[in-house]
Amino acid sequence: MPATPAWPPRSAPRLYVEADLCLGAQVQVDGNAAHYLLSVMRIKDGDAVLLFNGRDGEWAARAGALRKRDLVLECVDQSKSLESVPDFWLCVAPIKKGRIDFTVEKATELGVARIVTVLTSRCVVDKLNPERLFAQMIEAAEQCGRTALPELADMAKLDMLLRDWPKGRALFFADELGGEPMRTGFAKHPGSAALLIGPEGGFTAQERDAIRAHPAAVPITLGPRILRAETAAIAATACWMSANGDWSTDIIADGK
Amino acid sequence: MPATPAWPPRSAPRLYVEADLCLGAQVQVDGNAAHYLLSVMRIKDGDAVLLFNGRDGEWAARAGALRKRDLVLECVDQSKSLESVPDFWLCVAPIKKGRIDFTVEKATELGVARIVTVLTSRCVVDKLNPERLFAQMIEAAEQCGRTALPELADMAKLDMLLRDWPKGRALFFADELGGEPMRTGFAKHPGSAALLIGPEGGFTAQERDAIRAHPAAVPITLGPRILRAETAAIAATACWMSANGDWSTDIIADGK
Repeated sequence: MPATPAWPPRSAPRLYVEADLCLGAQVQVDGNAAHYLLSVMRIKDGDAVLLFNGRDGEWAARAGALRKRDLVLECVDQSKSLESVPDFWLCVAPIKKGRIDFTVEKATELGVARIVTVLTSRCVVDKLNPERLFAQMIEAAEQCGRTALPELADMAKLDMLLRDWPKGRALFFADELGGEPMRTGFAKHPGSAALLIGPEGGFTAQERDAIRAHPAAVPITLGPRILRAETAAIAATACWMSANGDWSTDIIADGK
Repeated sequence: MPATPAWPPRSAPRLYVEADLCLGAQVQVDGNAAHYLLSVMRIKDGDAVLLFNGRDGEWAARAGALRKRDLVLECVDQSKSLESVPDFWLCVAPIKKGRIDFTVEKATELGVARIVTVLTSRCVVDKLNPERLFAQMIEAAEQCGRTALPELADMAKLDMLLRDWPKGRALFFADELGGEPMRTGFAKHPGSAALLIGPEGGFTAQERDAIRAHPAAVPITLGPRILRAETAAIAATACWMSANGDWSTDIIADGK
């Protein structure tokens, strides 16, 4: 079955793989991914699967060599080139399991380039499982059509993060004591940026002073209600994407 | 213990009650709420609890008559007057349990005035438990400091919603086929507004035509990635609050 305009169909499953992708590449799939394709999606010989690996864009691949627990996907056509996401980092204090998973899922959908977890004095959680976060990210990327994965940085202590802050990257931080409305704050600082969100208990006075004293820091307000950490992260990320990111562009055309 | 500037402390628990609140009002608390105050928060005689009912603002109340399963809270001081939230409705197709709960929680935190669930052709879920949604809303309101609850409207069919649409309320809808960037779309239509988000499968062509033909409709784009229904709802609500809502205001002063 050659690649025609009707192929791959819109309903083709989308799968993250680690293998390199190029014309004719044969990708062996087993384990959970094979179970998903064979038993959940009921893929048949010749069916289309969309593949991406975070490096080579998205490829329409044809299923073959189907067995009970594995199959081979052959890349037939590049369906999307590698996207370039806006240069926006989300720096969040670790929060409890369900809520940090959720933050990673939403950050991926919203188009964040890099997710940094930041340890502060009032963090209740100080360990995260990077594999679990990565799995959340992959699932969200498969669902939202991203071809480039966010980078999941190692956990950093707040003082180290501030010390090593890259020149020229605005550091927007949600300051409980108030700051500039995002509307005007984002407009004044276009270009590379990051958002820093503290833990549920907020920053200590000392931490807040250190952030405010940083030359890149721009205190912003997220309005008159008290937002949970993950709500603040998602809300301010969405506002940045809309103001300074790529949300003036419609859904990426996928050649159909 | 009289009401002094140090009373109620910042750590005082916040509780939604149905009773009327005014100076000297005595509110009897039992059931889950009493368990929370007595066993989880370990409230003692004379301790402060902040009360709100969605009508009378927020009141600092003093705990008394503590027994094993109930207590009485006496309103001592109005700590916040009733807030006025921006006139923004969130109209969302019902989605599966965890994700609709989450949408209601976040909409409450973000400051939505009214939540309407809308039935469309591609809805997979067509029943919701209003008591569960109300409980989500209450918990979020207790946490985020709201004194006015969002109104939870009855589920409406899309055609009825469009037919009875109030004059003068902009109807922003996230159109998969593209629309105006929120940045410019919101700026052109200040004032009363609503956001309409379809189910995971999107609107049908016929539904989309009907919405587009409505005089209040403003198609908007939420950028190049495919957002889950609840992500779209939260992201666009945050952008509206920041652009046209009350997010230029800092956290409401609570008299301390």
